[in-house]
Amino acid sequence: MAVQSRQIVLARYAEGLPRPEDFRMETVELPDLEEGQFLVRNFLISLDTGTRSRLSEGIGYLPPIKLGNVVESFSIGEVVESRHPKYARGEVIGLAVGWSEYVICSDRGFIMRITDRRLPWDAWLGVLGISGMAAYFGLHRVGGIKAEEVVLVTAAAGAVGSAAVQIAKNEGCRVIGIDVGPEKCGWLREVAGIEDIIDYTKAADLFEAVREVCPDGVDVLFENVGNAFIDQMIPLMKMRGRIVICGQTADYNLPLDQVPGVHNIAYFIEKRLRMEGMVVFDDLKQWSEAQTRMADWIMAGDFHYRSEVIEGLEAAPEAYIGLLSGEAKGRRVVRIGPDPA
Amino acid sequence: MAVQSRQIVLARYAEGLPRPEDFRMETVELPDLEEGQFLVRNFLISLDTGTRSRLSEGIGYLPPIKLGNVVESFSIGEVVESRHPKYARGEVIGLAVGWSEYVICSDRGFIMRITDRRLPWDAWLGVLGISGMAAYFGLHRVGGIKAEEVVLVTAAAGAVGSAAVQIAKNEGCRVIGIDVGPEKCGWLREVAGIEDIIDYTKAADLFEAVREVCPDGVDVLFENVGNAFIDQMIPLMKMRGRIVICGQTADYNLPLDQVPGVHNIAYFIEKRLRMEGMVVFDDLKQWSEAQTRMADWIMAGDFHYRSEVIEGLEAAPEAYIGLLSGEAKGRRVVRIGPDPA
Repeated sequence: MAVQSRQIVLARYAEGLPRPEDFRMETVELPDLEEGQFLVRNFLISLDTGTRSRLSEGIGYLPPIKLGNVVESFSIGEVVESRHPKYARGEVIGLAVGWSEYVICSDRGFIMRITDRRLPWDAWLGVLGISGMAAYFGLHRVGGIKAEEVVLVTAAAGAVGSAAVQIAKNEGCRVIGIDVGPEKCGWLREVAGIEDIIDYTKAADLFEAVREVCPDGVDVLFENVGNAFIDQMIPLMKMRGRIVICGQTADYNLPLDQVPGVHNIAYFIEKRLRMEGMVVFDDLKQWSEAQTRMADWIMAGDFHYRSEVIEGLEAAPEAYIGLLSGEAKGRRVVRIGPDPA
Repeated sequence: MAVQSRQIVLARYAEGLPRPEDFRMETVELPDLEEGQFLVRNFLISLDTGTRSRLSEGIGYLPPIKLGNVVESFSIGEVVESRHPKYARGEVIGLAVGWSEYVICSDRGFIMRITDRRLPWDAWLGVLGISGMAAYFGLHRVGGIKAEEVVLVTAAAGAVGSAAVQIAKNEGCRVIGIDVGPEKCGWLREVAGIEDIIDYTKAADLFEAVREVCPDGVDVLFENVGNAFIDQMIPLMKMRGRIVICGQTADYNLPLDQVPGVHNIAYFIEKRLRMEGMVVFDDLKQWSEAQTRMADWIMAGDFHYRSEVIEGLEAAPEAYIGLLSGEAKGRRVVRIGPDPA
């Protein structure tokens, strides 16, 4: 029997903050499986700020999603039928296909096998998925953090940032987080246990606010916001400081000619700074080890995360727009079907 | 008998291009040597574009030279009297003291011992001194160049750039150089033997001109000019490309609020770019090995350099202003006394 799959596609390119009319729900009929393929029923999909640049033409560095194509995202799904020897019916995996109920896979592209079942499924779209792994490998491989070092994290209450501040803390670093508003900053202080949190809305001068907390400077800046932040923070970096470019949330929405400039490059010479960009998939082969370590921290109460589960595929566009507006509390995912039995 | 030493000091802070009146010649009388000191007679001094930012208040990232203090530079001198067991009369060394005839040293700060006497003395202020060493370690340690990689060098006919293009070529890289005007570009092509030279004055669109020469992109950008160049070249970088920030000649002269911005930071994520600043002294312990290697290349005819020797300490300010105006052909040094016997 042919499988009907509901999916959300890009209906038109977004201008500024996306609107509901930029998206369209449709139903497609999937063909039968061929040898070497398997069918996955997604039950959780993620909403990723990084996708934003691909919803418009001429912003960001990646090509836009084609009109009529499924909006890309990560998902957690269950193998419901298989003609591939390595993937058995009932296995739960992570995928990077998009906002659709069913998908036919072959053994290619991003497939994350989920074997550790101590945590809820939605953790695998966040703290044990791309956002947690981005924080983990961004700090370790790219940033080269060491115990006692000063680590500054921007958008510290976000999906990646909230993982980063806690990983750095668990590794023995001195951590400073920057985010906006009492709700986010309160969570970081009271739940995540990060003492030095700067509320960007209250700090008239962010440079001075950071300098007050760490007068001797910053060893590693884990940066998720954009060029204006990078430029402001460069003069605060210590000798041989590292700047990890993990995300550019504030700049993704901007036309290229409105992206702020980083002027303070001369400090790179004096302080031998290193700035490096990263993509979480670069370390895919090491994910499993990091996931076990993070799950251990969570089980031990040394790591906290927030996940918001929105119900129903049809709610994804509005939930995504809300995410881009900054209203999400922690990782926002959408449940589009029942958990596996 | 007390030693009289002529020296050039900073008389007032420069605005824009320095003027002769910003400098003043004076004569000082040096005290007798104490135990552990030795007296050096400088006979060659260097002119360094990097000093420019220290001739004004409020530009650049280093504090300005104090009014009345000797203008800082490198020099080559001969030990003429010694009360230090490690430095014997007659030894020739490199120093970083400034535009003065005599200087009393102790065994501290930058002292470069010159043991390889195959090349003329002025080579030790250029190709075997800071400019050659900056190129060598910038490409090797910071840039991590490998044979077959594409290396792009800006200000390629300058003291550092002309060393960089030839080092990269000798290491088996594909080299592209950018500089200004037929004289410099001609020297790079005909003497240094670098085929792909882009004359910046002729290229209406530098981005397109570079892309035409290396359509598959650049592995290592060795950057000596400033932020406007960096920003333009970032989109041409290959996956895992490295940007070495060695100098910022075009930006040293600018007030901080006029320094151009680097906007293309988003490429750092997509392409996993790494940008790192360097100072040549970071690798001081390895200089000797690199100097021998470079001298071997020069003796074998695989490496060419140009040095302009200006005569007389009193000519240093005008020669320095000319250097900042771009009139120098290769490394410009000033002879302020006779060679050692």
